[in-house]
Amino acid sequence: MKNRVLTISREFGSGGRTVGKLTAQKLNIPCYDGHLIDQLVAESNFTEEYVKEYGEYFSQGIINTFLGRTSGLTKQDELWVLQRKIILDLAQQGPCVIVGHCADYILRDAADCLTVFIHADLEKRAERIVRVYGEREIVPKERLMLKDRRRAAYCKFYTDMDWGKLRNYQVALDSGILGIDKCVEILTHLF
Amino acid sequence: MKNRVLTISREFGSGGRTVGKLTAQKLNIPCYDGHLIDQLVAESNFTEEYVKEYGEYFSQGIINTFLGRTSGLTKQDELWVLQRKIILDLAQQGPCVIVGHCADYILRDAADCLTVFIHADLEKRAERIVRVYGEREIVPKERLMLKDRRRAAYCKFYTDMDWGKLRNYQVALDSGILGIDKCVEILTHLF
Repeated sequence: MKNRVLTISREFGSGGRTVGKLTAQKLNIPCYDGHLIDQLVAESNFTEEYVKEYGEYFSQGIINTFLGRTSGLTKQDELWVLQRKIILDLAQQGPCVIVGHCADYILRDAADCLTVFIHADLEKRAERIVRVYGEREIVPKERLMLKDRRRAAYCKFYTDMDWGKLRNYQVALDSGILGIDKCVEILTHLF
Repeated sequence: MKNRVLTISREFGSGGRTVGKLTAQKLNIPCYDGHLIDQLVAESNFTEEYVKEYGEYFSQGIINTFLGRTSGLTKQDELWVLQRKIILDLAQQGPCVIVGHCADYILRDAADCLTVFIHADLEKRAERIVRVYGEREIVPKERLMLKDRRRAAYCKFYTDMDWGKLRNYQVALDSGILGIDKCVEILTHLF
C-alpha cells in the first residue's frame, strides 16, 4: 500500500516550509526538508551549500544558456538523480511531509500524495524574508522574483511541469491572506 | 463595515456551483447564482437564455473577431454593467456566496472576500457533465474546453484578470480528487 505524503511546493518567502513543519508536528509524522539536505550531503560529494543552492534552483547562468546546454550529466543532474532516489526511499518509510524538491512529481505514482502549493503576494513575502532571513545586498522583491524564476526553471527542466500552475496542485493556499495557522489547520484536516 | 463574501470561480463541470450552494447552506447565508440570473432578467430586457449564455461567456464569434471589435457598448457590455451593479448591491445586503460572474473582481474593494477557484481534471469533469446535464451533440471534453476558454476570455475582456491563475485566488481546490464534501468543509471553516 502506498504511503500518504504531503508534498508542499511554495513560493520563496511564503512560509510554505513553516506550514510543512507545523503540519507534520500536528500529524506527528516526519517533515523532510533540512533532513533531506543532510542526507544528500552524506550520500554524495556535494557540499551543503551546493545542495541548498542547486537542489531546487537552476542557476541564472544555466537559464541564460539553456539552449546551449551540452549533452551528458552535469553536476546538477547527478544531484537530481540522487535527490530523486532519496525522496522515493523516504516515501517508502511511512507517511511524511516533503517540502520542495519536486517531490509531487517524483512521487506521483509512488505515494498517495496530497499536493499543495503555498503562495503569497510579493509585498507580504518581501516583508517576511527581511524579518526571517535579515537584510541582503539585493532588494527583497528582486531576490524573490529571481528565486521563483529559478525554481520554476528547475522544475520545468527536470519534470517538464509548470511550477505554480493551479491545475498541478490539489490545494493552493494564499498564506499571506489566510495566515500560516489556517493553512496548517486545512492541511492537517485534509491529510 | 464590509460584508464577508465567498466568491467561487470554477471550471465548467467541476461542481463549483454545488460547492457554493452547499457551503451557503452550512453557513446559513444566501447563495447567488440562479437568483442573480433571475434578477438580471427582471431588471433588463434580456431573456433568461441570453443572460445564461452571455453573463459569463464570451461568444466564440467574439473571440474570433476580438481585434475587429468596434467601439461603443454592445448588448453584452450592457449586461456586464447591470450584472456588476446587482453584485455590488447583493454584497451590501449581508454575507453571501456568489458563484461566477467575476464577483471576485467586482467586489475586490467592496467586500471582505474569500476568493476561491474550484477545478478538476478533464476526465472527471467530462464524466460529471454527462451525469448531471446529460449527453449533448458535442463530445464532453470539447464542450468543457470551449466553455473554459469562453469564461477565460470573458474574464480577461471585462476585468483584465487571468482566469484560473493561482495567484488570483486565496484558495484553489481540486474537487475531482478532494471531493465536493471536503471542499465544502474547508470553505465553511475558512469563511
